[in-house]
Amino acid sequence: MTGDRDIKHMKWWGWGVDGVAFHHHDKPAFAPFVKEAVHLDLSTAQAVVPPELESLPVPVPKLTDAFAAQLVEVVGADHVHTDTLDRIVHTYGKSLRDLVRLRRAVIPRIPDVVLYPADEEQVRAIVDLAVAEDAVIIPFGGGTNISGSLEPPADETRPVLSVDLGRMNKVLDIDAESGLARIQAGTLGPDLEEQLGARGWTMGHFPDSFTHSTVGGWVATRSSGMQSDKYGDIADITRGLRLVVPGDVCVLRPLPSTATGPSVREMVLGSEGRLGIITEVTVQVHRLPEQRVIIGYLFPSWEAGLAAMQEIAASDAAPIVTRVSDANETKFSFSTSKAKPGLNLSGKIQKGLFTVLEKRGWDMSKVCLSFIGYEGAKSHVAYEKKLVKAIVGRHGGIVVGTGPGRLYDQKKFDTPYLRDFLLDRGAAGDVSETAAPWSRLMEVYDNTVAAAQRAYEEIGHPGWIMCHLSHSYHSGACLYFTFAFVHGEEDPLGEYDVVKSAIQQSFVDHGGTLSHHHAVGTEHSRWLEQDISAPGVAMINGVLGTIDPGRNFNPEKITGH
Amino acid sequence: MTGDRDIKHMKWWGWGVDGVAFHHHDKPAFAPFVKEAVHLDLSTAQAVVPPELESLPVPVPKLTDAFAAQLVEVVGADHVHTDTLDRIVHTYGKSLRDLVRLRRAVIPRIPDVVLYPADEEQVRAIVDLAVAEDAVIIPFGGGTNISGSLEPPADETRPVLSVDLGRMNKVLDIDAESGLARIQAGTLGPDLEEQLGARGWTMGHFPDSFTHSTVGGWVATRSSGMQSDKYGDIADITRGLRLVVPGDVCVLRPLPSTATGPSVREMVLGSEGRLGIITEVTVQVHRLPEQRVIIGYLFPSWEAGLAAMQEIAASDAAPIVTRVSDANETKFSFSTSKAKPGLNLSGKIQKGLFTVLEKRGWDMSKVCLSFIGYEGAKSHVAYEKKLVKAIVGRHGGIVVGTGPGRLYDQKKFDTPYLRDFLLDRGAAGDVSETAAPWSRLMEVYDNTVAAAQRAYEEIGHPGWIMCHLSHSYHSGACLYFTFAFVHGEEDPLGEYDVVKSAIQQSFVDHGGTLSHHHAVGTEHSRWLEQDISAPGVAMINGVLGTIDPGRNFNPEKITGH
Repeated sequence: MTGDRDIKHMKWWGWGVDGVAFHHHDKPAFAPFVKEAVHLDLSTAQAVVPPELESLPVPVPKLTDAFAAQLVEVVGADHVHTDTLDRIVHTYGKSLRDLVRLRRAVIPRIPDVVLYPADEEQVRAIVDLAVAEDAVIIPFGGGTNISGSLEPPADETRPVLSVDLGRMNKVLDIDAESGLARIQAGTLGPDLEEQLGARGWTMGHFPDSFTHSTVGGWVATRSSGMQSDKYGDIADITRGLRLVVPGDVCVLRPLPSTATGPSVREMVLGSEGRLGIITEVTVQVHRLPEQRVIIGYLFPSWEAGLAAMQEIAASDAAPIVTRVSDANETKFSFSTSKAKPGLNLSGKIQKGLFTVLEKRGWDMSKVCLSFIGYEGAKSHVAYEKKLVKAIVGRHGGIVVGTGPGRLYDQKKFDTPYLRDFLLDRGAAGDVSETAAPWSRLMEVYDNTVAAAQRAYEEIGHPGWIMCHLSHSYHSGACLYFTFAFVHGEEDPLGEYDVVKSAIQQSFVDHGGTLSHHHAVGTEHSRWLEQDISAPGVAMINGVLGTIDPGRNFNPEKITGH
Repeated sequence: MTGDRDIKHMKWWGWGVDGVAFHHHDKPAFAPFVKEAVHLDLSTAQAVVPPELESLPVPVPKLTDAFAAQLVEVVGADHVHTDTLDRIVHTYGKSLRDLVRLRRAVIPRIPDVVLYPADEEQVRAIVDLAVAEDAVIIPFGGGTNISGSLEPPADETRPVLSVDLGRMNKVLDIDAESGLARIQAGTLGPDLEEQLGARGWTMGHFPDSFTHSTVGGWVATRSSGMQSDKYGDIADITRGLRLVVPGDVCVLRPLPSTATGPSVREMVLGSEGRLGIITEVTVQVHRLPEQRVIIGYLFPSWEAGLAAMQEIAASDAAPIVTRVSDANETKFSFSTSKAKPGLNLSGKIQKGLFTVLEKRGWDMSKVCLSFIGYEGAKSHVAYEKKLVKAIVGRHGGIVVGTGPGRLYDQKKFDTPYLRDFLLDRGAAGDVSETAAPWSRLMEVYDNTVAAAQRAYEEIGHPGWIMCHLSHSYHSGACLYFTFAFVHGEEDPLGEYDVVKSAIQQSFVDHGGTLSHHHAVGTEHSRWLEQDISAPGVAMINGVLGTIDPGRNFNPEKITGH
């Protein structure tokens, strides 16, 4: 029984809420697809049972009574937790590496205590106590991170405090004139959109993790949402913030722009808890639009789809979403469609359309599904759609209507459940994403697919890789890869490393960044210098070392230091 | 005779090129306006004669023969300059404080030598030699800075090197697919637009200093251009860069976006030479638009004008320029109009229009002139104009056509010449700009005007202050103030300090930043902590101290350290 039972946590061993899971009973094309893609037979595959929490090797908290008493004095006994469940939930994020380790009871270091402060004053007291005690502080939002940003160093000998911001979950204030909302860092996506929506506003930030991630986490990891083409990445949306540092609070007032030297706002963005604890963020919010629509398109090839997105980015058009899947991801999308006519492209409608397109000369094994979104006054949506339609047409694409778009919009946050479903059945899957200039996207794509295939050969398992373009910018775009393979029993993470490393190395070798919106953490740390050069890493270490000379704040993340 | 005679420098004692100056022979309303605004009678005012270069107290360069020989070996004898003119040109920027000091021969510290490297390799050699010698390096672009970012510390005892990037003035490469251009840091605005324009591109960055400032300077000071509503501030435009640091080069590859921790790109932006020497910048470029038009509007009041700009920022419309002058600046604009019908609002046309508006009930002493710009396909420009016209109409504004806009577009870079004209005649004028959320703009405005008036009372001279809004953002805008007064002979800079300080203090007291696009330098350094808080200043010092522990790079700028 805890005083923090209102804080929603995900399943400790997987994604999402208890009782919700992926199934494919109503998706007739899914099992054949999986069999072809990774040679996994779902009709015979046995699902492993989730592990028993009690079976995990959890040591006694490394916490002196005096220090524990001080912490209780700050946040109250109801908000200081040392039970196994709370500690396990706060040990990892939700990367494949995290899920495999939990399922295999690999927990070299678990936080000693989980604290739930009620406000910034309590956060300040925790920080000052922890620094005085030479303890380690790891801020925790929703726990969705997949870059290893949350785990304590394996060999950490000092007490480790996980500071969960979950009680700080309010939209504090909306400045309606400026379109600025002051939001507590621990507010989850749905909670903040509900509080904003009730007053006619939206933040417009919808990362795939939306349902379980927080605004503080988005800032700390440089998140992007599916509507970033209009609303911007979190770095654009964030106009002000408060960050608790030892003995002080870094206060950045909300400003539309400023010329105050090296940007401190852009130092806190992406700082992954290494500079302190973000307690409050002031973000841009927008009036709910009169109309919002996501439209599906098909392109005869990946190249055509990319070229269309590039032309849209350079044009007068300004859609809110631009997304195009490669042929593999398109096949995957169709395989997860339900057999319900009218709503999507499955079944008879899809067949009929494909017959028509084949007659036009399309190679249906290369077809690529695309979604483009629009918002604003109805007349504005109509204007934008017209601009985009002309560009899509120039690249051989066709409009397939709002059905697939509506489905995508409804289901976009469900994909992580699918990863658990596959992992339960022996298939390891994860995602890696990059961003690169338009001129290098095909190079990044081709080389990354080839690198993954070589890696699958190396580990001796058939594997799958698929990709979509999302988040278009004037000068380039994000390529988001999903990969999966049936892992061996002996060393699944060793095999995963081979594949994941090949993909990451291909990114930086071909003009891409190590991550577009999943941060550095520990997972991508070893590519940082290749991405931003040694002096760049030195500059980051300079900031970190100044604020946190004792390495009390989430050590080893970003720079490995 | 120098080997760098092709490098264009401004007048050493004022703005712009020799032989060009403001005059008011064809502007009949100007002299009466000046008389009313600052009580200066131009019919009797005597213009001071520019000082004699030879009369300045210039010490012998503090440079050992051995060090000088090393520098000559790196860049060649033709590109190492110790003559008085070169050293004076590189001592200051072009703030009022700079111009007054030059005219009064106040030069506590002058650079010892001016170097003109040909390429990054030479820059690296200079940096390494200078650090080994414990010399001071001050990078120099066009010399237009008005925040004291260029002057050597008054008590600097080490050798001071001004490194002029003027020979590095090429557009190296255009990635047409990505809309990215690689440009050498010393390239002046007109040169880069000419090189880009010849191939059908524009960078779209047009700060007021455009004709005499460089891309490296823009990056180092977080510049904004008049079309930033479309093209973004330089922080948005800059996608990659190269920065020479001691013994290494910080290389940031061009990326549309990235999640690589605290942003090193945003640390170099606004670094004012304190982290090293920027040698190359990769910027977003755009195809020259089919149509470009700036349209003039009139609003019945400043409040109405601001409200219209705010509504435009929140709307579906996306103009490239949004600008509205307060009543004082509107009067100033009309006073500088030539008596040539058709092209602008002066003379009979203005009179006729004003009569009509008065009949409609407008108070013509409160009328505010506005410019809004549009670009793109002709149909797109028509669409945007229509969206904006409806908003302008809702706030009581009227369209006055393209004539004033065309004139503004032609003359926008000439205003600094006017400052010299007035200074020659005893009137000190300068600018200070801020950015704040929409909800606080009127508060910033009212309090800043009041603070300036109190300052004028304190110094005992009648003064003038006027303002325009420029650079609209979703959450706020830039307010750009111009102020002027007839200074006393005894202590013009003391009087200037009183006025300038009152304005800056009002900015930070009322939710504004210390500068929207003129950087911190030495001029705004003392407000930095009030703007970004003490931990923010500590973070900046952390970066600076890591890369430059010996304070060799442009010491004392930004943080005063």
